[in-house]
Amino acid sequence: MDNVAPALFISLEGIDGSGKSTQARRLADHLRAIGRNPVLTREPGGAPGAEEIRRLLVEGDPDRWSPETEILLFTAARRDHLERTIRPALAGGRDVVTDRFADSTRVYQGATRGDLRGLVDAIHADAIGVEPDLTLILDMDPEVALSRGLARKSGEDRFEEFGLPFQQKLRAGFRALAQEFPDRCVLIDAQADEDTVTAAIAAAIPAAADRA
Amino acid sequence: MDNVAPALFISLEGIDGSGKSTQARRLADHLRAIGRNPVLTREPGGAPGAEEIRRLLVEGDPDRWSPETEILLFTAARRDHLERTIRPALAGGRDVVTDRFADSTRVYQGATRGDLRGLVDAIHADAIGVEPDLTLILDMDPEVALSRGLARKSGEDRFEEFGLPFQQKLRAGFRALAQEFPDRCVLIDAQADEDTVTAAIAAAIPAAADRA
Ligand SMILES: Nc1ncnc2c1ncn2[C@@H]1O[C@H](COP(=O)(O)OP(=O)(O)OP(=O)(O)O)[C@@H](O)[C@H]1O
Ligand SMILES: Nc1ncnc2c1ncn2[C@@H]1O[C@H](COP(=O)(O)OP(=O)(O)OP(=O)(O)O)[C@@H](O)[C@H]1O
Ligand SMILES: [Mg+2]
Ligand SMILES: [Mg+2]
Repeated sequence: MDNVAPALFISLEGIDGSGKSTQARRLADHLRAIGRNPVLTREPGGAPGAEEIRRLLVEGDPDRWSPETEILLFTAARRDHLERTIRPALAGGRDVVTDRFADSTRVYQGATRGDLRGLVDAIHADAIGVEPDLTLILDMDPEVALSRGLARKSGEDRFEEFGLPFQQKLRAGFRALAQEFPDRCVLIDAQADEDTVTAAIAAAIPAAADRA
Repeated sequence: MDNVAPALFISLEGIDGSGKSTQARRLADHLRAIGRNPVLTREPGGAPGAEEIRRLLVEGDPDRWSPETEILLFTAARRDHLERTIRPALAGGRDVVTDRFADSTRVYQGATRGDLRGLVDAIHADAIGVEPDLTLILDMDPEVALSRGLARKSGEDRFEEFGLPFQQKLRAGFRALAQEFPDRCVLIDAQADEDTVTAAIAAAIPAAADRA
């Protein structure tokens, strides 16, 4: 078993409707197919307490929370997710595939209020302090993503600010992050069909992980 | 009106059962009696969103949240309380009397896990950044406080760790804070009868506030 890569911590990021949830599932299937035992999870949420915080975040009025309070709540949910789901899985040798992680907070808050990136980073450094080994940034034209229709649970509409200009800001934010963190980020063309995107993602997984 | 002091931000702190809620009400009465118009509030809570976060904090299993996640949730609730209740009141010229504020997080988390004071302070500096003008620390023997019986809402029992050794640690923590922040903290003997404690608190209010 010496040639099996240690457990991988992988996040999927990208604008609304870019295929994160679809591809997270498919990546987990791929990892299983090559003999690994991944944990598939998501943010905000991914642990019982974090899912309760998710409900506070995704339901209700858009101005229910200020951006600063929102950052604290996202980070509280992330800390719970990290402690209760991510770290135990990695410690047990299992890969973690998460549908969003800290980059979403960086980009969404930054897109709303550019001056908040510093607050996101400061609280992240204090309370989280880890990054994924690999971040797959699903990149595509927001107009095409909008036309796909959303598979999101109804009621979770607090962030449904799906205007094109906002999504274009998010796309630019995710692309800038890929440049800022080139060691862990891989930009994936998410406009192709599902199988093609899955193949591009599989190709980005470190070769050592493949023992098929 | 030039001789009216600007709005005061006052917190009451102390161990469980030391009389914070009782004296916060009485202090608000006193301020009204001297012609001021205070807002009486409390933590965690004090604004609609913050009260929802309160419910996550005070209900359920003691190990529902780790101390680190708890600090983030307390700070999220505090940020909401500050933005929606405290700052608007002060901006409108009204005093704020709050039953607990950031010192409770410093002392309770510190009493549970001594190494967390740094995390509390870092997140406070990033996301809150203000202290009360005056903090009244209700100091008393925990054995006497325990014998008083508690007036707390039932169901809110996640923190009901009312063992004497824990309350003694809390008392020591609050006394240490009074020494650390002598400019804003006043230690009040809370073991006296209610009227005597109220008189001691009234005497600690800056004289300029009194225009009776
Ligand atoms: N490559 C693709 N080509 C066409 N449609 C796709 C593709 N990938 C996903 N879809 C469809 O697009 C919609 C959005 O996909 P998905 O829910 O996976 O995106 P998401 O990034 O998780 O979205 P959200 O941000 O709303 O969670 C779904 O209806 C899904 O079936
Ligand atoms: N000076 C006093 N002497 C005797 N009993 C008192 C005094 N002050 C308050 N009490 C009683 O002690 C109990 C606890 O008081 P209170 O609820 O005000 O304390 P608290 O610090 O807010 O407690 P908690 O930490 O549980 O919120 C109540 O039953 C109250 O009536
Ligand atoms: Mg999704
Ligand atoms: Mg009380």
